[in-house]
Amino acid sequence: MRLVLAAALAVPPAVLVLASGAPPGARISPGAAQGPAAESPSPVVDALEPADLVARIVREATARGRAHELLTGLCEAAPHRLSGSPGAAAAVEWGRQTLVDLGFENVRLEPVTVPRWIRGRTARFQVVSPPEAAGELATIALGGSVGTPPGGLVGPVRAVRTFAELDALGERARDAIVFFCRPMERTSVDAFAAYGAAVPQRTQGAVRAARAGGVAALVRSITQRLDDVPHTGALRYEPDVPRVPGAAVSTLAAERLEALLERHGEVVGRLELDCRDAGEVPSWNVVGELVGRELPDEVLVVGGHLDAWDVGQGAHDDGAGCCQSIEAVRLLADLGLRPRRTIRVVLFMNEENGLRGGSEYYRTHFEEMDRHVLALESDRGGFAPRAFVTDAGPRGREVLEEVVALFEPYDAGRLLAGPGGADVSPMRGAGVVTVGLVPDSHRYFDVHHSASDTLDTVHPAELELGAALMAAFLYQVAERAERLPPNPRIGR
Amino acid sequence: MRLVLAAALAVPPAVLVLASGAPPGARISPGAAQGPAAESPSPVVDALEPADLVARIVREATARGRAHELLTGLCEAAPHRLSGSPGAAAAVEWGRQTLVDLGFENVRLEPVTVPRWIRGRTARFQVVSPPEAAGELATIALGGSVGTPPGGLVGPVRAVRTFAELDALGERARDAIVFFCRPMERTSVDAFAAYGAAVPQRTQGAVRAARAGGVAALVRSITQRLDDVPHTGALRYEPDVPRVPGAAVSTLAAERLEALLERHGEVVGRLELDCRDAGEVPSWNVVGELVGRELPDEVLVVGGHLDAWDVGQGAHDDGAGCCQSIEAVRLLADLGLRPRRTIRVVLFMNEENGLRGGSEYYRTHFEEMDRHVLALESDRGGFAPRAFVTDAGPRGREVLEEVVALFEPYDAGRLLAGPGGADVSPMRGAGVVTVGLVPDSHRYFDVHHSASDTLDTVHPAELELGAALMAAFLYQVAERAERLPPNPRIGR
Repeated sequence: MRLVLAAALAVPPAVLVLASGAPPGARISPGAAQGPAAESPSPVVDALEPADLVARIVREATARGRAHELLTGLCEAAPHRLSGSPGAAAAVEWGRQTLVDLGFENVRLEPVTVPRWIRGRTARFQVVSPPEAAGELATIALGGSVGTPPGGLVGPVRAVRTFAELDALGERARDAIVFFCRPMERTSVDAFAAYGAAVPQRTQGAVRAARAGGVAALVRSITQRLDDVPHTGALRYEPDVPRVPGAAVSTLAAERLEALLERHGEVVGRLELDCRDAGEVPSWNVVGELVGRELPDEVLVVGGHLDAWDVGQGAHDDGAGCCQSIEAVRLLADLGLRPRRTIRVVLFMNEENGLRGGSEYYRTHFEEMDRHVLALESDRGGFAPRAFVTDAGPRGREVLEEVVALFEPYDAGRLLAGPGGADVSPMRGAGVVTVGLVPDSHRYFDVHHSASDTLDTVHPAELELGAALMAAFLYQVAERAERLPPNPRIGR
Repeated sequence: MRLVLAAALAVPPAVLVLASGAPPGARISPGAAQGPAAESPSPVVDALEPADLVARIVREATARGRAHELLTGLCEAAPHRLSGSPGAAAAVEWGRQTLVDLGFENVRLEPVTVPRWIRGRTARFQVVSPPEAAGELATIALGGSVGTPPGGLVGPVRAVRTFAELDALGERARDAIVFFCRPMERTSVDAFAAYGAAVPQRTQGAVRAARAGGVAALVRSITQRLDDVPHTGALRYEPDVPRVPGAAVSTLAAERLEALLERHGEVVGRLELDCRDAGEVPSWNVVGELVGRELPDEVLVVGGHLDAWDVGQGAHDDGAGCCQSIEAVRLLADLGLRPRRTIRVVLFMNEENGLRGGSEYYRTHFEEMDRHVLALESDRGGFAPRAFVTDAGPRGREVLEEVVALFEPYDAGRLLAGPGGADVSPMRGAGVVTVGLVPDSHRYFDVHHSASDTLDTVHPAELELGAALMAAFLYQVAERAERLPPNPRIGR
């Protein structure tokens, strides 16, 4: 990106140091009228058909893409970046400096107040009885959990696969460590469906256990992989329910514990956690732009979330999405493709345990929402791109299907139906169309929310291709003569 | 597979212990006439539409697929199984016993004479001059290479990116170690295209170097990954050209060597290899069948190659393809889906350095070729399936497009144009339609032909899905009332 000299929205496009010129117009809708200022200073780029333009972006990303280099930088600068932590502050500074260094315009930090939760040093689950089964299982505190008393709490372990099974326990749940042992199902293509089915035991387990009279929730990690790495993730408390601790054991540990219960009938465990809530602290969303050539007030948002769970490096979740978002805009700028409308990169804070960044962005920019054309998120891992997903209504969808069809040569030409991503989801209320990049999900939950989510599991070519298709997607929508039709506002 | 009681083609289908009954007929061609014996003993399966039948196979494979278990067994029984080696013999016995244990019919070994090449213990390339640059680089002998004299051979290193650059060296190539330093290009989707472009320096490098007067060929490993693991693979000699040794260095080593040449101009190296040709030895293709219900003489072949390079475990190349082929047929049998025509699993020997298994299968079965309906190969790694590829002519293609369109829900609904695979390629001469499973190729050449090709790089869910789609593909074609139209015989 060679926009380092251009610092403000007020700078006219002609002053910006762009590699070449501007773009082919909204050719994907053949009938669309060209705006009066659609003349392009770059006949070469202008002469490209949309499919060729996509090919050009992909070629550039394949040869000289920088998403993986950016991700390497983020994972080194701030491997552990849970909201409110020093690591998260380092990630914010990394993001700001990276956008400045790459020459983004209007780089700024937008304040967000976030919860701070501290994992502490101890997360231990031990079988204490029967004595011949005594031993420790690989355990991790669930995000947001209260700690146990010092020395831990002790109780009989009661295994349940469903909340209905928990209800059926009756008195046997009293003072128990409720063990939610349902495995995440194996899936053929879409692992997110299986995740959605399994995850309530993690998010609601503590509340359900407490309501039933239990003293803690112990959850089988939400992953299809059988190994000894426990996976964390948020739990939720409710106002009128006692807060009991929640932890996850690895899938192998869960199978061991089930086998012990099978063999011995009664198993007593001790859970010890010294995690704690540390109130709220200031943090930031990181924002930077490629200002639109003709319609700078009309905005396309692209982003991922900068916070990550404090184990592993958050390489896939969601370092990948942040770096793809940055890289998508860098690619356009370095190819001289400044579209009609503004593309705004937002690195959201606090997706994992509060969604404060997404909510605050919506609140802060509420008056601009009718000028938000679209919000694209990448938060499903950095694997090979397979499709896009959108909640656009019929008219918007028709346009986006034409755009995504351009990605058929890269085997990512399908447009699925659904919301784009968590961080951009608040904007749906204002009728903003949200879109998500959908990569291959076979391997995602192997590493998700665990110490296994490290840079070496991200394949550079897969990551760069995703960034390239995001760039092409954004460009095609941002450059159209006619604005993408919005969705209806919800509740108005 | 529950066919253990049925041992021979002569056993009538009704005697076979099948889980349910027979199949929905060739519904994908609505106009096709049903044969007189198409009545199915299983109304449940019979009532399934093709798309539902595919879904049923995929569900079964997702929940209880055994491809990964089979691959684990192969990688344990015979991790190093280069043609003619004791490991290859162990792999043959593993294959035979596995097919017998799973209840395949007509299990047999078909003799193939194969070359035996022995890697030896030494593969060393050292920079010997200038003295300040002296050191050893990660090196591996290319398959089929002659050894060097004991103590190695010494020569100036001359780097070339193309054969034209080699020709231009003229006298400077004399007595040189010719260093083919062209990197495999980065690619967006199809890594095989980049492989095809880069691989001639490995296959032809030694011959080209010898013709130019050089004493050896040193090749940059054909992989897009930058690491210190050298990749082997076959070289070819020609009758009237002196046989000079060929070896590959890792990509990092290649970059180091290029940098040394850049800095010092003249670099002298020593190459030492004690590999050797050990003549020809007997081996086998491993064959087993699910005999057709109505047209047992009409055959669909499915297979991969059982031999593998003698580093790593050949997990992707091509243990994956062998195990997917076995598993595809096991799935059909265990679901009670015995199709009209015979499906024959062939685990081919010697794809990597001779293609003797594929050639011998063609020779031995030459008289049956007009009854070979199709040959499906899986030899592009065990990654997530993305498409199928076929060389079928227009009429056959039309049918196969309908079949492959059924895989759209699994994001593998595309039918590409091209040959199916190396082992089945000899059959193309007789007009047999060949087909290949096309998995995601982003990660394949990271491990291909190297010590990195190990079981832990194969994802179970990806492997099982590929096997499931192969099963569904085979079933749809084997069950059609009308035979798939053949291609014209070549040269007749």
